[in-house]
Amino acid sequence: MTAYSQYQPLDLADVPHWDFETDVVIIGFGATGACAAIEAREAGAQVMLFERSSGSGGASALSGGEIYIGGGTDAQIAAGFTDTVEDFTAYLKLAGGPCVDDAKCEAYGQGALAHYQWLKDQGVPYRGNFLPGKLIEPTDDSTLIWSGSEAAAPFYKNAKPAPRGHVIQHMGWGGGRPLVDVLEARARALGTEIHVDARAVALITHKSHIAGAVIRIDNQDRFVRARKGVVLATGGFVFNDAMRRKYCPESFRVNSPIGDKDDGIGIELGVSVGGDAIHMDQFFTTCPWTMPETHAYGVFVNIQGQRFINEDCYHGRVSRCAVDQPGGKVYLLLDLDNFQQPPDFAGISIAATGETWEEVEAELEMPAGTLAATMALYNAHAREGRDPLFDKQLPILKSLDKSPFVALELNFETSYFSFFTLGGLKTTAQAHVLNRSGNAIAGLYAAGRCTSGLPAWGHGYSSGLSLADCTFFGRQAGRSAAAG
Amino acid sequence: MTAYSQYQPLDLADVPHWDFETDVVIIGFGATGACAAIEAREAGAQVMLFERSSGSGGASALSGGEIYIGGGTDAQIAAGFTDTVEDFTAYLKLAGGPCVDDAKCEAYGQGALAHYQWLKDQGVPYRGNFLPGKLIEPTDDSTLIWSGSEAAAPFYKNAKPAPRGHVIQHMGWGGGRPLVDVLEARARALGTEIHVDARAVALITHKSHIAGAVIRIDNQDRFVRARKGVVLATGGFVFNDAMRRKYCPESFRVNSPIGDKDDGIGIELGVSVGGDAIHMDQFFTTCPWTMPETHAYGVFVNIQGQRFINEDCYHGRVSRCAVDQPGGKVYLLLDLDNFQQPPDFAGISIAATGETWEEVEAELEMPAGTLAATMALYNAHAREGRDPLFDKQLPILKSLDKSPFVALELNFETSYFSFFTLGGLKTTAQAHVLNRSGNAIAGLYAAGRCTSGLPAWGHGYSSGLSLADCTFFGRQAGRSAAAG
Repeated sequence: MTAYSQYQPLDLADVPHWDFETDVVIIGFGATGACAAIEAREAGAQVMLFERSSGSGGASALSGGEIYIGGGTDAQIAAGFTDTVEDFTAYLKLAGGPCVDDAKCEAYGQGALAHYQWLKDQGVPYRGNFLPGKLIEPTDDSTLIWSGSEAAAPFYKNAKPAPRGHVIQHMGWGGGRPLVDVLEARARALGTEIHVDARAVALITHKSHIAGAVIRIDNQDRFVRARKGVVLATGGFVFNDAMRRKYCPESFRVNSPIGDKDDGIGIELGVSVGGDAIHMDQFFTTCPWTMPETHAYGVFVNIQGQRFINEDCYHGRVSRCAVDQPGGKVYLLLDLDNFQQPPDFAGISIAATGETWEEVEAELEMPAGTLAATMALYNAHAREGRDPLFDKQLPILKSLDKSPFVALELNFETSYFSFFTLGGLKTTAQAHVLNRSGNAIAGLYAAGRCTSGLPAWGHGYSSGLSLADCTFFGRQAGRSAAAG
Repeated sequence: MTAYSQYQPLDLADVPHWDFETDVVIIGFGATGACAAIEAREAGAQVMLFERSSGSGGASALSGGEIYIGGGTDAQIAAGFTDTVEDFTAYLKLAGGPCVDDAKCEAYGQGALAHYQWLKDQGVPYRGNFLPGKLIEPTDDSTLIWSGSEAAAPFYKNAKPAPRGHVIQHMGWGGGRPLVDVLEARARALGTEIHVDARAVALITHKSHIAGAVIRIDNQDRFVRARKGVVLATGGFVFNDAMRRKYCPESFRVNSPIGDKDDGIGIELGVSVGGDAIHMDQFFTTCPWTMPETHAYGVFVNIQGQRFINEDCYHGRVSRCAVDQPGGKVYLLLDLDNFQQPPDFAGISIAATGETWEEVEAELEMPAGTLAATMALYNAHAREGRDPLFDKQLPILKSLDKSPFVALELNFETSYFSFFTLGGLKTTAQAHVLNRSGNAIAGLYAAGRCTSGLPAWGHGYSSGLSLADCTFFGRQAGRSAAAG
């Protein structure tokens, strides 16, 4: 076992030779690493990018390619929405909840419109139109969808709602791959030197500076000198069970990690040189319960037959609150007008049906006067156009009257609750990695899910927040590193 | 600014001189540090203990002096309870929830009876009797009380209940101070060299070993050599707002930190040499809502008028679940038979009264059919001796029928929700501090609330778990350090 195994940094004095020398070393080739490379090259730095997989992508390529952008984009304006930097920034802060990083919200709030233009300038195509509805990703090649809890309580009270999920022009789901393809092409065209099948195992330190990295290629350690800086862009730790057990044990309630080898290496490398890992208990999760779209009109109850959330929130916020409920499952209640068979991949099953809510309640073996009473109260209020308990808003607020009725079971173990981690290195809005005293570690930068960023709080997630964070702060990391 | 400020370790080569030399250095003089000192001295080591305050105590001295002990103690047997190591250990594991450290639960499960004898051998007096009831601390000088959720769901289903809160013989509340006094006297009698007004600011490292500590005394740095080891016994981080913001932001929902200068220094020192800080998001909180004791018969509802917990759980578990509820407050519902004026210090106010639950509901401005329906259902079930929603058990399960009725408000900001942090260094059951790869850091030991230990999970806390952890693993730390 070598001295720099287990993420221990290697002192410059112990580097036997340099295999590579460059200005900026970037570790990880998802959207974050690609954006960092583009900016570092644009700033004139020599850039080497190391990726442990055999090609680009990371978790970014598994996403919908949706980026959370507001403040008045062309697509927002064309669709008749007025959004402002103030409302957009206010929403970002609300979405961060108790974990919010105000400086990042303000930087992105101010910078998002220019960032959108920058994405277009790199070659990311946007059709420019708005697709209404309660969608997880666009079903066609539209640009703009509602992708968060903007119009739902408590968010709408403190920030004027607007749709902000901006998606690459791409037919159907899965815009993440083509988005990364565009960014990769641009990074290559600008002269980034890319090494794949190349796994980072340690940082190299010189006094209190980061001077490079040890990269394992063909099972041999290669010593890479970074004259200006190292950028960590390696993603979260959803595939590292030991880390999850120590820092995020609640995530074991759900079952389907999303990512590409996200084993927390960037977090470990950052911490190995004094970096501060924060909000490590936070995770995003969602179960695709709004498919088909009519299911968005459903009502959720826990095993006590109680509602627990305004169901017009973003599907991930509803799912995250569901996972807080006791008993390992929740029920989505629907009537004939809104029920359709859920897609197989969701693992959502029919737990009970009935001509009345009392029958559904009995079939679920709930005590009389629980679920049925909840639905009687909900329906009575919905007919009056109000939800005094949870402030669910029209038009999603709708009474469920047409029998037969159904209770779908969302089971945390057997339904498809995808998830990824949100905690990571504490960084500035300029992507400097901070130590535990709040001081920047010279020569070390990070962005994306190996940091705690815009999507800091699982209960406040909105689609596109993570890619916004990856692309915007990935760019800052590239620029900051190039500036040395 | 010196090189070892901000918790950066000082290399042995940079130590200008030694002010003190000893075998074992202990930092912190609560119950943990005292127990470590006793064991290290008993093992023949020379011991110096450094305490930043002007005397012993720490958070231990602010406690009730209650230690969670099971497996069949004299007091348990005398009161007719049969407890086994298996049931006791099973309860400890349930109490740890998703954060559980199985090895520590097993070590303490096996070792608790001998530990109880050891405490007596040090001079801790126990009257040996059981005081029944739902108490926060004994109101007289009794030894044994129910101090957890043993008899409540879901715990009773998986571990046979027994009372396990063992309290030093001491009239009334506040047994923590006399408990520490006994341990301090013993540590002094054994020849521990004690320095007060002496604050640790850095560890001293020699290669991968911990070789000592820098201690600030009279505003000067003193260099202390530890030939065998350093024990961190400094408590949690409840008084460090910056740490709470980064690692435990949910704790800002509540308002009354308990501790004595608990600023997380031990955690920072441990992490500065590669230690792993885990479960940093966990905190204990409680509001004294079972005072007077008849209030234990109350029913809790959130602002939606829903119950959210079986109220027969430990007051701290109920309080912690309360703090998860939306809206910043919950209500404790009582009838004439059970209501008495709460103590002023609790900050619990009367929010509504009524001749019927409907009147209470209306006075709280809750929609008709919420709180009143909850109480109608609860009362109907309670009269049948069952609680199918939350499995609250007899005899606490009791219908609330006698008007007038009252709703007490427990407000997270204005009521007395005391709290302290539970996350900290990851250590073995022998109190070795582990690095992030799971390997022991040579010469470094820790116990108590600067570690994640028996009370790992806020929702599973029981009174006496923290002092059990402090005293038992404090002893392990002293023994391990003395063994070098």
